[in-house]
Amino acid sequence: MPNYKAPLRDMQFVYDELLASENINQLPGMEEFTPETIHAVLDEASKICEELLFPLNRTGDEEGCHFDQGEVTVPKGFYEAYQEYKEAGWPTLMASTEFGGQGFPHTFYMLFGEMLCSSNLSFAMYPELTYGACNAISRFGSDEIKQKFMPKMVAGEWSGTMCLTEPHCGTDLAQIRTYAENGSDGHYSITGSKIFISAGEHKLTENIVHLVLARAPDAPEGIKGISLFLVPKFKINDDGSVGDNNSVSCGSIEHKMGIKASSTCTMNFDGATGYLIGTLHKGMEAMFEMMNSARLGVGLQGVGLAEISYQNAVEYANERLQGRALTGAKFPDKAADPIIVHPDVRRMLLTMRAYTEGARAMGGWIATYHDKDLKSSGQEKIDAEEMVALMTPIIKAFFTDIGFEVTNIGMQVFGGHGFIRENGMEQYARDARITQIYEGTNGIQALDLVGRKLPRRMGRLLRHFFHPIQNYIDQKLEEPNLKTLASPLDKAFGRLQRATGFIAQQSMKNPDEAGAAASDYLRLFGLVSMGYIWLRMAEIATQQLADGEDPFYQAKLDTATFYMERLLPQNSTLFANIMSGSKTMMSFKASSF
Amino acid sequence: MPNYKAPLRDMQFVYDELLASENINQLPGMEEFTPETIHAVLDEASKICEELLFPLNRTGDEEGCHFDQGEVTVPKGFYEAYQEYKEAGWPTLMASTEFGGQGFPHTFYMLFGEMLCSSNLSFAMYPELTYGACNAISRFGSDEIKQKFMPKMVAGEWSGTMCLTEPHCGTDLAQIRTYAENGSDGHYSITGSKIFISAGEHKLTENIVHLVLARAPDAPEGIKGISLFLVPKFKINDDGSVGDNNSVSCGSIEHKMGIKASSTCTMNFDGATGYLIGTLHKGMEAMFEMMNSARLGVGLQGVGLAEISYQNAVEYANERLQGRALTGAKFPDKAADPIIVHPDVRRMLLTMRAYTEGARAMGGWIATYHDKDLKSSGQEKIDAEEMVALMTPIIKAFFTDIGFEVTNIGMQVFGGHGFIRENGMEQYARDARITQIYEGTNGIQALDLVGRKLPRRMGRLLRHFFHPIQNYIDQKLEEPNLKTLASPLDKAFGRLQRATGFIAQQSMKNPDEAGAAASDYLRLFGLVSMGYIWLRMAEIATQQLADGEDPFYQAKLDTATFYMERLLPQNSTLFANIMSGSKTMMSFKASSF
Repeated sequence: MPNYKAPLRDMQFVYDELLASENINQLPGMEEFTPETIHAVLDEASKICEELLFPLNRTGDEEGCHFDQGEVTVPKGFYEAYQEYKEAGWPTLMASTEFGGQGFPHTFYMLFGEMLCSSNLSFAMYPELTYGACNAISRFGSDEIKQKFMPKMVAGEWSGTMCLTEPHCGTDLAQIRTYAENGSDGHYSITGSKIFISAGEHKLTENIVHLVLARAPDAPEGIKGISLFLVPKFKINDDGSVGDNNSVSCGSIEHKMGIKASSTCTMNFDGATGYLIGTLHKGMEAMFEMMNSARLGVGLQGVGLAEISYQNAVEYANERLQGRALTGAKFPDKAADPIIVHPDVRRMLLTMRAYTEGARAMGGWIATYHDKDLKSSGQEKIDAEEMVALMTPIIKAFFTDIGFEVTNIGMQVFGGHGFIRENGMEQYARDARITQIYEGTNGIQALDLVGRKLPRRMGRLLRHFFHPIQNYIDQKLEEPNLKTLASPLDKAFGRLQRATGFIAQQSMKNPDEAGAAASDYLRLFGLVSMGYIWLRMAEIATQQLADGEDPFYQAKLDTATFYMERLLPQNSTLFANIMSGSKTMMSFKASSF
Repeated sequence: MPNYKAPLRDMQFVYDELLASENINQLPGMEEFTPETIHAVLDEASKICEELLFPLNRTGDEEGCHFDQGEVTVPKGFYEAYQEYKEAGWPTLMASTEFGGQGFPHTFYMLFGEMLCSSNLSFAMYPELTYGACNAISRFGSDEIKQKFMPKMVAGEWSGTMCLTEPHCGTDLAQIRTYAENGSDGHYSITGSKIFISAGEHKLTENIVHLVLARAPDAPEGIKGISLFLVPKFKINDDGSVGDNNSVSCGSIEHKMGIKASSTCTMNFDGATGYLIGTLHKGMEAMFEMMNSARLGVGLQGVGLAEISYQNAVEYANERLQGRALTGAKFPDKAADPIIVHPDVRRMLLTMRAYTEGARAMGGWIATYHDKDLKSSGQEKIDAEEMVALMTPIIKAFFTDIGFEVTNIGMQVFGGHGFIRENGMEQYARDARITQIYEGTNGIQALDLVGRKLPRRMGRLLRHFFHPIQNYIDQKLEEPNLKTLASPLDKAFGRLQRATGFIAQQSMKNPDEAGAAASDYLRLFGLVSMGYIWLRMAEIATQQLADGEDPFYQAKLDTATFYMERLLPQNSTLFANIMSGSKTMMSFKASSF
């Protein structure tokens, strides 16, 4: 059976040391979020994750959700765990203080959310979706709607969903058929079917608040005629209590490869009462608000799964006695050496470690911009928003690709035992697989990066990334201690810049060129960004080690070295792929595939 | 629901065109295996795969095997399908003619076996394991044993297993605890427990013949004291009929990530009657005989799963209407364009195709050496054996890594629908996952390559590969039509040669250097080998296209181009990884992981 211990030491390193210079707790309203407060809350959070949620992860996977006549039953223990989670106030952490929330920074959430995903991804999805829905409602909902729904949602009494996908359209929301009719009293009446609705139906909460994309009467065709509606499972009485059924029903749940304890529902709306959120026909704007924070959230699902897989792979590699070290027995008194003596096993473990710690740090770094976007003003706010916009598709796709790679390496460390369900390792890989797909497939993220984010404001977004990073690398190239690490990063960064120029130029002539390069480009961008954050971590470690030996900082420095030597070199292949262009793939006849 | 059509046209291309110059049917005893015969049999085989085995693949996965009080029940339909398969004579195809087999060449089996694995991997494992056991018995068994067991096994009346792994030892068989005692009448009495025994228990066949590694009395310690025993589930009466229980029992079956319709058993031997196979204490030799053919067999499991995933991804990409081409609508009369218009989707499909067709061709190529090893003599036989020995770990590890990559890309093409069990795509990925682990993990294959195969006979094995391939590339560099394809291959080949020299040199000083490079080196070797076979295919296609347009050959040439542009470039990253050495990973403290 797997184990989980929240990586508190590394989380503190990220928040206190790596990101100290970002001064998150000097932002307005963030004053109380000192490192001490953050530590105390992470410490409490680690207990609920390790002791309450983690023990339900394997059993939840085995049991899955069940559907019977419109009702969904979550696995044993989930209901009780949710009540405990709710009563302890965890759902309120991230919500704004206006409706009973505690307004914790996003930078904190990257760490807290990671713990939730490590310990039980399926469980984590129920509160995470509520949080996403709250964001959209608090930004785009009317005051009346907010007063009616937000306090209950913030408290976790009611939960939320995002209802976008229909059987014939996932990525292409222009094809949505769900429609709204004007109701009698200023409400709308919503009719249609949605699929793949996570947390669409369950009995964890008293009510479920669906945010539904639909076409209102006289809507323009296509994507410009989509509106967002709030449709509760149960109507709300005038006194705010939960009332009658609202013609919302669950038609079935999906049988999936993973995240089996998360209910994935077909939701049918049959003239259900709905409330407009935001501007009529401008639902996509509100949807993107939800989606963008959801995408960052999915990115950290990848980190969480990578972490739990890494921990257990290390434990197994230290315990499994098999064969002898290539250089001669290291533990001659034992029947065999633990497999951690083997370079190939160490290669696997360090790959897992370098990606996982790198992603944790990089996610935290980007989250500081998210906080600045929300809490600062003027140019700082604009710059921060642009940085988040640029990095969102990278965080989503790169982190989830890493999550899947790392969880598969974790299985591989276990050998045949990794394929056995009881040992838990294969569940992490199955759970990780969906993160590359939902909230926009990773291919769509790549198109978002090259098609929307690069050209936006004439490439201005990129400048937030390129200029400071170039400066930083240039400085470190001059420092003897860091030069060997900065040098390969400098080369990779040069390739990223050249690839960017190539795509910008080529895609003006032919948009397919951007499409052909997109996935490799996103990975290259992610690798270089992570290389930057590893260099920054190496700098801190080097400074600390100047004062004397310390295993934590030594491991940090060694992992940075491993990253530069063994993971960053992917950049040469990615660069070659990007530069090979679109011709071969586009000239291939569709009928010849 | 997925579909399957055996890729007969491409299989004919491999057998008749690509491998024609190998003259398989001029080997002694192979005269009848003309292309016509092979086509006819593949044609028949395709029917049984498409119509009998494929329809049981999804249901088999859902139902799985069940265990109750020592008895294993396979999924519905498997028993009937096996009887039909057996009665039609399919198990006899590959066995030697001496015991009722038909003696088909291995080159044929690479195609036939691929079909079996595409259509139903779990089912395919039952006859495949019997085939592996037959190989070992026919080579190492006494005449009496052969007469007693081979005819029934060849006919598929009895099946076979390999019983190697124990709970505390998989890779490290030196730790085996199962032991043999001298029985009263020249037999042995076998006692011990084995785990992960595929097809260990079921009722598809009248008897099950276990080949069991165990320690005989007075055995030397470690790997040099292991013997191989044949232990039938039921004893055999003097008249050859099946007799009493033989103290062999199944203790449980595993719950696994995939290949759920294949029973994976814990087998307990409690003083069971066993017969020595081969020389006492030299069981590893016989075991490697079984294992090597099993490793090639596992390699083609990767190809089979890649093929079925590719076919269904293409179909979906042609049918799924979503969004518009980046260059403007291609099907303005439809609600949206099929997703196959998108470069990123084509990149995915061509990656799947280039790997799958490349592996089919490369597997066929290596199988010709397997046939020469078995049927020729003198130097030709020695050379062929050495080529098979060199390439076996590459076929096993590279093809199964590809199988997992391709089946995951197939899921990705389906988007959210790929994660849903009913659509079948995720099963291929789950089934493919085990192929990277069993019959020696892919890390072990890499160590076999660098640790055993490279140094063997002072690097002589490599010369069978390096010399002819260098000559071929040199020639093609001179041909205007093929130069652009040969040139990147030449560069990659140069890196492979340099990496080989580096490993040979470094590992003399420090064996950990070989271990640190092993996995990347195996991949590099596989990539270059596949590049070579793609260049040969491109040559044939170019010749054929000189006579006029032909979509088949055009697609072949375009896929070769894609391979050189988009997959072969991995060589630069792999080379950099290899050259970075072992220092960072070996100096990392075990306690710091």
